[in-house]
Amino acid sequence: MLHDPNRVYVFDTTLRDGEQVPGCQLTTPEKIEIARELETLGVDIIEAGFPVSSPGDFQSVVEISKAVSAPTVCALTRANKGDIDSAVEALKYAKHPRIHTGIGSSDQHILHKFNSTREEILQRAVDAVKYAKKSVEDIEFYAEDAGRADVVFLAQMVEAVIAAGATVVNIPDTNGYCLPDQYGAKIKFLKENVKNIDKAIISVHCHNDLGLATANAIAGLQNGARQIEGTINGIGERAGNTSIEEVVMILKVHQTLGLHTNINSKNFYELSRMVSAQMRMPVQPNKAIVGANAFAHSSGIHQDGFLKNRENYEIIKPEDVGFPSASIVLTARSGRHALKFHLERLGHTFDKDELSEVYQRFLILADGKLDINDDDLQGLVAARMVKN
Amino acid sequence: MLHDPNRVYVFDTTLRDGEQVPGCQLTTPEKIEIARELETLGVDIIEAGFPVSSPGDFQSVVEISKAVSAPTVCALTRANKGDIDSAVEALKYAKHPRIHTGIGSSDQHILHKFNSTREEILQRAVDAVKYAKKSVEDIEFYAEDAGRADVVFLAQMVEAVIAAGATVVNIPDTNGYCLPDQYGAKIKFLKENVKNIDKAIISVHCHNDLGLATANAIAGLQNGARQIEGTINGIGERAGNTSIEEVVMILKVHQTLGLHTNINSKNFYELSRMVSAQMRMPVQPNKAIVGANAFAHSSGIHQDGFLKNRENYEIIKPEDVGFPSASIVLTARSGRHALKFHLERLGHTFDKDELSEVYQRFLILADGKLDINDDDLQGLVAARMVKN
Repeated sequence: MLHDPNRVYVFDTTLRDGEQVPGCQLTTPEKIEIARELETLGVDIIEAGFPVSSPGDFQSVVEISKAVSAPTVCALTRANKGDIDSAVEALKYAKHPRIHTGIGSSDQHILHKFNSTREEILQRAVDAVKYAKKSVEDIEFYAEDAGRADVVFLAQMVEAVIAAGATVVNIPDTNGYCLPDQYGAKIKFLKENVKNIDKAIISVHCHNDLGLATANAIAGLQNGARQIEGTINGIGERAGNTSIEEVVMILKVHQTLGLHTNINSKNFYELSRMVSAQMRMPVQPNKAIVGANAFAHSSGIHQDGFLKNRENYEIIKPEDVGFPSASIVLTARSGRHALKFHLERLGHTFDKDELSEVYQRFLILADGKLDINDDDLQGLVAARMVKN
Repeated sequence: MLHDPNRVYVFDTTLRDGEQVPGCQLTTPEKIEIARELETLGVDIIEAGFPVSSPGDFQSVVEISKAVSAPTVCALTRANKGDIDSAVEALKYAKHPRIHTGIGSSDQHILHKFNSTREEILQRAVDAVKYAKKSVEDIEFYAEDAGRADVVFLAQMVEAVIAAGATVVNIPDTNGYCLPDQYGAKIKFLKENVKNIDKAIISVHCHNDLGLATANAIAGLQNGARQIEGTINGIGERAGNTSIEEVVMILKVHQTLGLHTNINSKNFYELSRMVSAQMRMPVQPNKAIVGANAFAHSSGIHQDGFLKNRENYEIIKPEDVGFPSASIVLTARSGRHALKFHLERLGHTFDKDELSEVYQRFLILADGKLDINDDDLQGLVAARMVKN
């Protein structure tokens, strides 16, 4: 597999793992709208649905396949012919189709979900990949509950499915169980012990039951994975999935990791709000990267430090993730309300009289400038603090 | 310092770092109510406020000091006499008072916030601890922005403040910058290189700007820290702090870490809702541990697996964190609505007709039992699936 060794592929499952949550169901036109925005964001793979699960899901995969051209469109299946046939059919208009098939890999799942044996499950895994490969070149295999699986058996399974034709091997922490060092060690073991591992990309799919989905995904990338699966706003089954926006910004902030994605991070804020509104899933104000307060400095100590030098308390510039910036909207025609919003966004709260006073000085400043940016606002506030 | 080496102390800052967020301000009676619940939860330290910052904050520290008896009550200060005098005064009724003083430790803060030098800052740190120690025995020192500080200078600072009398040394990742392995390595370095480190407890105070606050706290504990600072629901400055509920449940799920706290985890759900309501900060449904969907199984694959054996898709029992349980409230007198709520909580959604059908069978079952628990409900649904 020829590819830039430092390139991380972003696999979005907002429309599959996210959409299956009660209350989050979308119509096909809504899914198409989000899919187009995901394409603009620059995701590499869009998981569009689970075609066999319902006629609606089938149709959505068909329509998303027609609607986007750059990203790979992926359809989920279990490890059986009926599911795979349905997915192949649903993907027929996709420019870059991918089948995502798989089966449980932990003894818990093998014994208590499939009532089966490791040998039988291994065979079913290989059979599914071979069957899917007859119709579609790009086959991703998921080893469900890999987070709790015996790593030696997992390595056997991964080796077998790569030999059967899998191009991507997904090592899901289905139940959000692992600690980052455990999950990283699992990926490292596969990288070092699966003979044909260089013929496939390792993918990380982590759940947030213990609040560790993002950390686990990063640990996977640090140990050799090169695809990360996640959703916008971290939505998904139970406590949700890895937040794509968090992983992408970690790679940007931590350049020393030497990894990069194709994502246009300036689109995050708007897409976050679109997904939240369409899926009726609020984003809590303290959500990392996209929460309303994510860049708001509130305490006096922090405000003071921020005014002296924004890097004292800021590791990401809000504008890098598309956070509404004062430079776009504040002009001499802006009202008190807009000014208040932007001041609060920067962490400054004033009572009515104080605001009036700042507003008068804002108008004088704005009269002389086409627009007012954050630095101008900080200047206004700093001037006020010195004065008082 | 004599203490159980595997005991992790829980330091709650919901009423300080959480309460300073715009829109989250509480009255003193509201703070007292939360403080009492935190005492019931079993937190070891309550950070009650920053007394010098306002008369309201001062008064809250006074009243919380009177209201609780088991936990240590802590007051925040900067490294100056005025702040410390105010904190000492505010804590005078506390049975177990603690002063939390500190100063910036990164070159970014030393140069661009304090316009100072390492030598001068080190002296101010030591002076503050010595001054506070005259009035209060238990002194916690915070090395602000330690996440970005040079580790050798940080070690020097930690050694000096312990020598000056600090009983706890807090290594905050103030800006939520660190990756878990970096933060863990920092704590390990201090543990191995600070000569008098055994005379103090290392505390972790992590922020969630990159979605890594919980992972970083755990990495700190894995490398020798024994106090964790956080808030209920992870609220706090910008993207918030480590969620106490996440850290506590990680230590419970991962018994192999060998660490334990004094927390009654069954109180989490109720306290989460109280903090959310009083502070007007919504908890997103996919929040780990306490979100409305945290234990809801929605996809067909997951529901099916869950019905076969709940451990296929569940690593924490909802009742262990006080999630409303069917066994408490569902009886033969319960209505369709209550049934629907509990079925949805378990991940089962039905339309009106289906629900009516399940409800009739529920009534028959409930007639013969005092109450209906989750297993009974799963049985009802499983029976229906077999039937259809």
